[in-house]
Amino acid sequence: MEEKIIQTRHIYKGRVVKLDIHEVLLPDNKHSKRELVNHPGAVAIVALDNDNQVLMVRQYRLGARQTMLEVPAGTLDAGEDPAHCATRELQEETGFKPGKLQSLGGIYTAPGYTTEYIHLFFATDLIPAKLDTDDDEFLEVTRVPFAKVIDMIEKGELEDGKSISALLRVARQLGK
Amino acid sequence: MEEKIIQTRHIYKGRVVKLDIHEVLLPDNKHSKRELVNHPGAVAIVALDNDNQVLMVRQYRLGARQTMLEVPAGTLDAGEDPAHCATRELQEETGFKPGKLQSLGGIYTAPGYTTEYIHLFFATDLIPAKLDTDDDEFLEVTRVPFAKVIDMIEKGELEDGKSISALLRVARQLGK
Repeated sequence: MEEKIIQTRHIYKGRVVKLDIHEVLLPDNKHSKRELVNHPGAVAIVALDNDNQVLMVRQYRLGARQTMLEVPAGTLDAGEDPAHCATRELQEETGFKPGKLQSLGGIYTAPGYTTEYIHLFFATDLIPAKLDTDDDEFLEVTRVPFAKVIDMIEKGELEDGKSISALLRVARQLGK
Repeated sequence: MEEKIIQTRHIYKGRVVKLDIHEVLLPDNKHSKRELVNHPGAVAIVALDNDNQVLMVRQYRLGARQTMLEVPAGTLDAGEDPAHCATRELQEETGFKPGKLQSLGGIYTAPGYTTEYIHLFFATDLIPAKLDTDDDEFLEVTRVPFAKVIDMIEKGELEDGKSISALLRVARQLGK
């Protein structure tokens, strides 16, 4: 079933998105074109405090043309270990470090046209630390009871893919 | 928190991906650039047969450089109703039509850099119909017991974001 890349045309290289058009050889030896975003990868973290509340962030997302509720997340630096990135991003966005950090595997967000893979983590035993938001990020941190955030997913009030995957994984693990 | 688009530069317009660079006005009146993929949107369908098996598709995904197991899915035609698209794509990819089709809301796959929104559906009472795969799609349809597919998610053997979101939503609904 594999598709072999025959030729690649670089279209654009930006800060987050790098777009390439690949000419591929299909299993039936025909050729086709695949538009592919080359993404450095990312992490997303379900951070649960001792009162069973989830640390969530609200931010405006141009892709959705709205302010969205999401779990803390961020892009991997070149060569960065995903667990290190998760610890760094959680602190930058919420001002807490994970005392305990468990890997939940990961997700390809849209493997038909982007290489992006998001490593999912479950952070507990949270430790207060210094808040350190990026210059062009406008975030609002909010705590939502775990049962409430799951209810929001079921009602369609939380529509961020990585957050849904991570939170429902944690819900199963906690038997909730 | 809103970001206002001041200026847009069109970088590329392809078959699936359209890339724009927006200059935006941030809440603090500074300017920033946002790289944004303009995507027509898509559907993904959890199709459960009467033997409690899920109709899944295997296909090579260049974004993941591997053959992946996913729920049937496809891109919306211009102006197409999502439920119509779900019925069409399920038939094209698996050869079955949904007797009953329930909306599960949807997900933004990566709202930081793409507009893509995937409408999620739960199809049951499946009716055999004509298989009609796209020319450059190489799919293998496979039936996986529902409990097994959830187990694969928990073990990290199924890593497609839309499939995880949709399947875990259905698992909660079925109390499984």
